[in-house]
This record gives sequence, structure tokens and C-alpha cells, in this order.
Amino acid sequence: MKPHGAWVLTIGDELLRGEIVDSNKSFLSQQLLELDLHTGRHVTVADHAEEISTQLRAAAQHVRVLLISGGLGPTRDDITTEVVAATFGRPLVRDPGAVEAIKRYFDRLGREMSENNAKQADFPEGAEVLPNPNGTAPGFMLDVEDTLIFCMPGVPAELYPMMQEQVMPRISQKLGISDGGIVRAQLLRTFGFGESVLDRDLADLSRDDGSVELGFRVQFPDNLLRVIARGADEAQAERRLQSTLVELRKRLGPAIVAESEERMEAVLGRMLLEQKRTVAVAESCTGGLVGHLLTEVSGSSAYFLEGIAVYSNAAKMRELAVPSDLLEQHGAVSEPVAEQMARGVRERTGADYGIATTGVAGPGGGTDDKPVGTLCLGFSSAERAEARTYRMLADRARNKQLAAHIALDSLRRELLGLGLPDETFPRATKLPEKA
Amino acid sequence: MKPHGAWVLTIGDELLRGEIVDSNKSFLSQQLLELDLHTGRHVTVADHAEEISTQLRAAAQHVRVLLISGGLGPTRDDITTEVVAATFGRPLVRDPGAVEAIKRYFDRLGREMSENNAKQADFPEGAEVLPNPNGTAPGFMLDVEDTLIFCMPGVPAELYPMMQEQVMPRISQKLGISDGGIVRAQLLRTFGFGESVLDRDLADLSRDDGSVELGFRVQFPDNLLRVIARGADEAQAERRLQSTLVELRKRLGPAIVAESEERMEAVLGRMLLEQKRTVAVAESCTGGLVGHLLTEVSGSSAYFLEGIAVYSNAAKMRELAVPSDLLEQHGAVSEPVAEQMARGVRERTGADYGIATTGVAGPGGGTDDKPVGTLCLGFSSAERAEARTYRMLADRARNKQLAAHIALDSLRRELLGLGLPDETFPRATKLPEKA
Repeated sequence: MKPHGAWVLTIGDELLRGEIVDSNKSFLSQQLLELDLHTGRHVTVADHAEEISTQLRAAAQHVRVLLISGGLGPTRDDITTEVVAATFGRPLVRDPGAVEAIKRYFDRLGREMSENNAKQADFPEGAEVLPNPNGTAPGFMLDVEDTLIFCMPGVPAELYPMMQEQVMPRISQKLGISDGGIVRAQLLRTFGFGESVLDRDLADLSRDDGSVELGFRVQFPDNLLRVIARGADEAQAERRLQSTLVELRKRLGPAIVAESEERMEAVLGRMLLEQKRTVAVAESCTGGLVGHLLTEVSGSSAYFLEGIAVYSNAAKMRELAVPSDLLEQHGAVSEPVAEQMARGVRERTGADYGIATTGVAGPGGGTDDKPVGTLCLGFSSAERAEARTYRMLADRARNKQLAAHIALDSLRRELLGLGLPDETFPRATKLPEKA
Repeated sequence: MKPHGAWVLTIGDELLRGEIVDSNKSFLSQQLLELDLHTGRHVTVADHAEEISTQLRAAAQHVRVLLISGGLGPTRDDITTEVVAATFGRPLVRDPGAVEAIKRYFDRLGREMSENNAKQADFPEGAEVLPNPNGTAPGFMLDVEDTLIFCMPGVPAELYPMMQEQVMPRISQKLGISDGGIVRAQLLRTFGFGESVLDRDLADLSRDDGSVELGFRVQFPDNLLRVIARGADEAQAERRLQSTLVELRKRLGPAIVAESEERMEAVLGRMLLEQKRTVAVAESCTGGLVGHLLTEVSGSSAYFLEGIAVYSNAAKMRELAVPSDLLEQHGAVSEPVAEQMARGVRERTGADYGIATTGVAGPGGGTDDKPVGTLCLGFSSAERAEARTYRMLADRARNKQLAAHIALDSLRRELLGLGLPDETFPRATKLPEKA
């Protein structure tokens, strides 16, 4: 039988010691699904020649595609390339282009390339090199015995772009999936509904015959929703995809942050640029996270004027003109204080919008009245200032993330011409009734 | 050869679709290491009889222990138990005690037990039942052909206690390692040296006989270093561990952030509390990330007075009294500006220490003079103000992380009575010469 399907092999002693949770495998399998390729097996082995070789030989018998991550580094432990070469009887050949690329990488660091690193430019004869602009370890593709073998680095920041930009197109092309046109997929980033709510209230959109499938993936605090549509031809698959998207837009409304993987801060940044607006933030419980997220986007200096992390009451008074009687009367975690913080930061910086967070991230600091997870969000623009209270139900780190995303979302909704999200948000237990 | 070592097998279609990151495997391998059992292979397969059976047969040939999680549920998909029974020629036998336990579980929920759930009380003949107080699926142990097979549920809340409370003691007992006490391990968090530098310059500390092993794991921007020492008895293992730690402290010095997994911000927070000092930060290229990290620690309001994210020159002048001629003469990314930012934020807030970042995170904004990755760090205390320039070579997100950690580290070193890190930091290509 001709091989079909795919396996994913990750290599590294640290994985087998359990020091790392291996998320590369789930990423790689998700990617393969976009090409309608199902993963039949995940395997992890140590940096051990015989173990690796056993898996390589089994894969060459059973599957059409083998994705490998790990073991391409410069250290003595890293033996993936030489084991692939030896298993399939290919000599190792040094690739001059790859040597140059690694040298350039070190030049930029102002460092000499070591002999260890030169080893990373050796590939099995006949392999196609996959350049790695994000690190020293290039990957490679080897086509053996009807099986496509892709070797990629284990570091996610290097693996992810290599898979998406270089491996996916090669699989499409080699397997002739690219012009099959039978699968159309679309990813949606959503914010504001839990995975179980989405799963339950959108279940009717999946079709038993597999012509439309919905998949969910949590990327806290967002939920990624993947729609896969299949058809006899491209037009049919596309029609099914589009009609499902129409229904999803109706049901989810502004909870759809992007019809892609694009993050909230990037979507918001684009909107601010387009509308030529600026923002300043006053952060208490988020401590700088809103500013950090905004500045994850290159070019954010065009719209992010200033962030102030005011942890103490003194700082709130000094920096944001929050009156002391407001703090005394309502407490630092209160809507009047949040509103004044937003107003204060907007006025002091001259930004179009002021956003403020004050809350109880936990685990300490909660009271009966204002339990851990309370967030008061302040919002201010030329037209109005207002505040609203939300409740979050997670640990400190995730409460901060959630609070910062609610802050960003409030501005995104403003720019969409909507108001602040409802106070049940982001805990809504049900989607709005279908239209 | 008699089987040795362990494999971990997880079963579930959702794992192979990549919808879940499978953290059970790393948990199970960590547990096994406590018994000095190394995991030789992680495998994940679908709920598919032939695939599961293939793995069972291979494990019975190769390993002493096979841990399985998943596929014990009540649905038709869940076939792990019947495949184990069929593979080793054992009939399925219903266990009356397990039926009662499942009934009681439903009683507590006020629900009827369905016929599906009764199936969860069937076990291969000769199996030892492992009760599950946290769910409906009991696990079981089967001793076949010199291999101990443990089947456990896939839900972490059920799996973790079953592994710790029931499986671990049985492995100890069956393999006779319960009073061995021969492995001692210690984790160190380091910051400032790359993984390849550590690997090369510490290689001589590992012993070929396995009595001392060093393992590395990147948790950007830190490197975690794990020391494992073995001995004939506990005292010998402990002596080997301690003498290795003495040598590591000598070589790595302040690059050891913690002799545990504790993060930089937590270590720094503890030191600030102990020394009763406060800090304020002025962030340009890090945009709020330093404040965010500081406030990841509960109780940080005791020492984190204020953070100001000043992205524009106007904000630097207005908020931090950076003179306009300094900005014109040297540019915003310069040591004089970084120094004044640190001084400015300290003076304005009354903090003991002022820390400032200004740099080029990329991908845009680099010049020949100040390429992407340039960081000017400013530091100010009652005694002095100074600045230093570092070079980073990563993408925007990692440059920001690295810059923020250099900022935190500079304060940690100050509190240790050391100066700012050397300018080659964090790119040092070699550890200091051995003492």
C-alpha cells in the first residue's frame, strides 16, 4: 500500500524528562489539517541514533509526510541530521549558502561563528535546504521512498514560521493538494465567549458528512475557531465555507476579533492608524501589560502616546488627578476612580482616547465587596467618560491578561462604533439568540 | 534482553488533531524520573485498535513499564481496555466493586448510571483495579510478559492523583526501588549565557558513568539547568550533587538567578522586600513590559511605585525632564537619554531606584549607528546614575523580553552589591575562566 497520512516526530531528551510540555506537535498537526492531512501518530524520542532511525524507517514505510522537530542545534547532542543521512544512505554535504547565512547571523551579533555552528550547514545529499531567518539552524526537506521528510528546529519561534512559510507550500505542491481545491479553511480569532459556550452554541453548524467542520483552540484569553469546508470542487468548498462564515458573523458579531490569527493588539493598531487616532493608558491592576501588548506591534509609536502604571493611591492622585476624596469614598477599585484615571491620562497626554484599569488581580487583596477578579475599566474620549465593572475568574496571571484584553477590546469596540461590552462579558454563558 | 525503562502512550483523536496540547506526557515522565526511570519514548495514537495494539506489543518487548492515559471513557470511541485485553489474550471481566464505585459516583451527582458507564467496570482478567475517586473511569494495572502496563484516564484532574497515589507506589514496589533513594536533582535558573555556551563550558561537569548529569532547557530569555546526581546511597548522591553545585556557583556566579525554577521578577521582588527598597521604571522600547513583569508577583505594590511608558520624545521631555537638546544631540536611543530617564522617574516618584529602557526593538527603526537590537539601559539610585548599551539579536517580541529582563537583572545585581552587567552581556561567548 502506498503510504498516506502524516506522522509527527519530536526529538529531545528534555521532552522525555518531562521538563517541557511539547506544544510543537499540536501546532504541526493543526497545520497539517489545513491541508486535510491527518496525523496518525505523534512520537517523541531522545537524541539517540537508534531510536531516531527506527522511527525514520517506520515512517518511510507507513506515511507520506513525516514532520520532525528538534535536534538541529550546534551541540554534540544534536544528531537528527546525521541520523537522517545515515538511515537513508545519503552522505552529508556542506551547503555553502547555509554556511554564509549562519555567518551573517553571527556577524549581526558581532560574534565569530564557531565550528559547532558550521555543522548546522551540513545536509543529507539531495536535501532541499529550508533557510531559517530566525536562528542558526536551517531546516531541510528530503524526499525518500515516497515519503517527504521535513526536519525543523525545535524552538517554536523558529519552527512556526518555517512550517507556515516553507513547509506548508512544499507539502501542497508535492502532494498536489494545492490545485485539488477540495478543502477551504478559515481561522477566526474570537474574544469574549468560553470554549464550551462556542462548542455548544455553534455545534449545529458542523455537518455529519464532514462537509463543514468546526474546531476550537484556546489561546488564552482568546478562542481560535477553525472552519474547514470540503467540496467536490473548489467552488463548492468555497460556497460552503462562505455560508458558514456568514452565519458565524451573525451569531458572534464583534466577538470576532479577526478573520485570521491576527491578535487583538494588531487589529486595534491597524484601526487606530486608519482612523488616525491616538491612545494613552493608565494601568493599576495590569501594571504595564496593556502598554506592553500595544507595543508588541511594530509602528505602535504612531498611536500609543503613553502608558502610566499607577500602583499606589499616591501615584493615582499625583499622575492622574484622581481626587483623594474619590479614593476614600469609593476605594481605588471603583468605577468613579477608573473613570477619572481614564480622563486624567487622556487630558495629560492629549490622546484621543484614555483607557484605565483598576482591579483585584489576586490572589490577595479581595474583599466581600470587591472580590479577587474584580475589574473596573475606565474609558474616556472627546465625547464622554465612563466606567464599567467586570468579574474575572482565574489566577493572577490570567486575570491580568484578561483585564488587559478587555481594555484593548473596549477601544476596538469604540472604533467599530459600538459601546463598552456588556457587564456579563467575558463570562457570557450563551451566545445571543440567533437572528 | 530483559526490558528496561519506560514508555508513555497517550490515546485520543483530539490529541492528533492538535486541539489539545498534551501535557500528561511530561507530567508522567517527570514522575517516573523520581524513581530514576527514564522515558525512552512518548507516543500518541488515535482511538484505533490496530494502532494501539501495535504500541502495546512493542512495549511488551522493549520496556519494563508502560504508562497509558486516555480511552477509558464510556463512549464507543473509548477502546483502550478492550484492546489491551485482546492484545494479551485476556477475557474482559466485570468487577463488582468497580460497578458499585461508579454507581456511588453517580449517586453523589444525583444521577442514574447509564449502561455505557457499566462498561467502565470491565477489566482484562488478572488486572488490578485502580479506583478513581475523581471520576467514573477506574484505571488498572496488568503485569504481562515482564512489562507493567498501567492504564489511566486522560483527564488531568483524574490522572494526576491516580499516578501519584496509586501508580508510583506500585512501580516502586514491583521494581524494588522504593528504598533506593539514589537520585538527587536540582534545578537552577540562569540568565545571561546562551544554551550552547553553557553546554560547552560546563560539559566537563557531567560524568560518563551517569553519576552526574547536566541538562539544559531554554525558557526564553532564561536557561534552566538541571543537575541530576546518582549514588549507591542517598548520602553519596547528595555529596555528588552538592559538589557539582559548588562548582556551578563558582563558574556561573550571579548568572544563577535562582536555585529553583523561581522567576527573575519573583527573586527580585523578594530582595526588594527584604532590603525595604522601592523601584520605578521608565520604559521606552519595552512599552510597559518591565512593569508587567514586576506586577506578576503578588504583593508587588509594596515595592513597585510606578511605571511610565514614554514612547514619544514629547512624553520623555514632559514626564521625565529629558532636555530637548539631549534628545537632539544624542537621539532618543542613547546613554545620556537613558540615564536622564532613570534619574527623572526616580526623582518624580521618590523611589529608591529608577530603571529606564530605550532601544530599537525592531523590525523597523534601526540605523547603521543604532541597529535593531540596540538597548540603552539607564540606572539611578541615591548614589549614582549611569547608563550602558547592550545588543540583542532576536525578533521584536524577544528583544522586548530580553530588554526587560536585562533591566530587572541590573537591579538584582545592584541589590547583590554588583555593578551593571558587562556590555558583552547577555552575549558572552564564554564563561569566565575557571577559578
